[in-house]
Amino acid sequence: MTADAAAQALALTDAAVAGDRRSLARLLTAVENRTAVGEGAMRRLYPLAGRAHLVGITGPPGSGKSTLVAALIAEVRKDGRAVAVIAVDPSSPITGGALLGDRVRMQAHAGDDAVFIRSMAARGHAGGLASTSMAAAAVLDAAGFDLIFIETVGTGQSEVEVAAAADTTVVLEAPEMGDEVQAIKAGLLEVADLVVVNKGDRPGAQRTAAQLRAMLVASAPRDWGATRAQPRPKRPEILITTAATGDGVPELMAALDRHRVAGRSGSSAASRLERAETQVWAIVGDRLRARLHDPAHAALTEALLGDVAEHRVDPYAAADRLLKGIADG
Amino acid sequence: MTADAAAQALALTDAAVAGDRRSLARLLTAVENRTAVGEGAMRRLYPLAGRAHLVGITGPPGSGKSTLVAALIAEVRKDGRAVAVIAVDPSSPITGGALLGDRVRMQAHAGDDAVFIRSMAARGHAGGLASTSMAAAAVLDAAGFDLIFIETVGTGQSEVEVAAAADTTVVLEAPEMGDEVQAIKAGLLEVADLVVVNKGDRPGAQRTAAQLRAMLVASAPRDWGATRAQPRPKRPEILITTAATGDGVPELMAALDRHRVAGRSGSSAASRLERAETQVWAIVGDRLRARLHDPAHAALTEALLGDVAEHRVDPYAAADRLLKGIADG
Repeated sequence: MTADAAAQALALTDAAVAGDRRSLARLLTAVENRTAVGEGAMRRLYPLAGRAHLVGITGPPGSGKSTLVAALIAEVRKDGRAVAVIAVDPSSPITGGALLGDRVRMQAHAGDDAVFIRSMAARGHAGGLASTSMAAAAVLDAAGFDLIFIETVGTGQSEVEVAAAADTTVVLEAPEMGDEVQAIKAGLLEVADLVVVNKGDRPGAQRTAAQLRAMLVASAPRDWGATRAQPRPKRPEILITTAATGDGVPELMAALDRHRVAGRSGSSAASRLERAETQVWAIVGDRLRARLHDPAHAALTEALLGDVAEHRVDPYAAADRLLKGIADG
Repeated sequence: MTADAAAQALALTDAAVAGDRRSLARLLTAVENRTAVGEGAMRRLYPLAGRAHLVGITGPPGSGKSTLVAALIAEVRKDGRAVAVIAVDPSSPITGGALLGDRVRMQAHAGDDAVFIRSMAARGHAGGLASTSMAAAAVLDAAGFDLIFIETVGTGQSEVEVAAAADTTVVLEAPEMGDEVQAIKAGLLEVADLVVVNKGDRPGAQRTAAQLRAMLVASAPRDWGATRAQPRPKRPEILITTAATGDGVPELMAALDRHRVAGRSGSSAASRLERAETQVWAIVGDRLRARLHDPAHAALTEALLGDVAEHRVDPYAAADRLLKGIADG
């Protein structure tokens, strides 16, 4: 790292930790893009992180994720905790277009320094959505936010993985969303610590909750399958909310806090390890990619990739030759 | 590789290339899971691949991707070409639930050996969706399919990347899908070689096509920005289809064939290189991960990841120590 990048990293982290929101935003950009400044900042901030409660919120488009996040922000602020949101949902009113009502609800917190909202494009990020959003969460954690919500759409592999790697994962459903959504339910339910039927004022809400309960009972692992080494996963709790009116939101917040306490040594330790591995692995990948494209190796790398593209060399043989090239210096 | 795995890979590839569909299915599973048999098979099959036309089809849920793929299969079969489908759409009737009509349409090809349909779960695959689906495409290519459609939902990072890495990428839109879909259009349009407004019998179809045309003109790079090194991307063609009736499908097929011919040396060479890099990189990652978890390194790896999880070591420092450990043997 250059002295200039190091100085910039130092200045940005100091300002961000001291509460300067503009520096925090710049820092997040640097960390997300894994620049030298971002690396310097991360090295300094990472030891300060590890205290926040990271909550993933995912569900199909139209289930009301953003409205629920807005309602949860209001709830969190009641007891004075600082809250940040990482929104990776392309249909989110936070990131993109959609409902005026939500925008207004978000603007209610515009003057509140203990609320910070960061949108993240689902595409075009260096190193993938998972490592990028986890690095952003670590920065927000170090900057002193008590709760960090990661909102992702529940129809993409990377997006579901991001929500699943949080300490607590909330999966949203809206009543009567039709057969198409039922089809993806199974995959989403697997990652849920809490299942929330939102839009609870609609006629089908109770029935949807009952259906979900039945599905979860049917899919629950049997008792005799549990061992000490691989404890039986807990059945996710099911709650009903109406995010638009706030009904059920205090109960959801209480459930999140309970899960946080209960999960400290169990499921959330596994999530922390998963997040660590994702981040370390992304950096290992960066370092290797940089080495493969440095002047000493670039010619071999490009020739090999071209040979694979034209089917003259198979990808396994190419991988082995690249690895050997690195090992030989 | 064990002698047993090598023998199994040999037998499966011989049978699959000779036309045995059950062996082909087993081979795809082995390749997708990157087992020793899969590696052996891939090494043998890869040099035979590189002839098929790989077409990515993506779009928001409800735009009619699966119905269009079914209609395209029928169209391709008219001139006798063999066609395979890799369906990574969780809402696809091929993979999951949904419309009876489409299932029936697919069953129309049930006795046709020149049609092969493979569904792929969007989650839980070794090495990520992109490398897995590209490896599957290479196998189908080597097995002699002329056209390979990859159908993915257009709302996830990995899913869009998969479609974008095809030789030709088709982005679907349905008329009047509301504001939420408009919000993600921009991101999807960037990867499109062809934009198809499906459900063309609906009132808003012409207007949607006109809006898309206007958007594409507005976002088109200006002439003076084009250089020889970075040629100006071509504006995607816009077509209207009604997949349910087949209207516009022959015209779409003709456009796909035109793009195939035009792109052989241009955009599709870039796609081939991208697919090569994705596959090689996934294997490099596998090899490294295996080495980090082998008996010689496992203790260091686990201790380091635990330290990162508990924020005692930052992920950059951990990555550098792991890489040093590998280099030192």
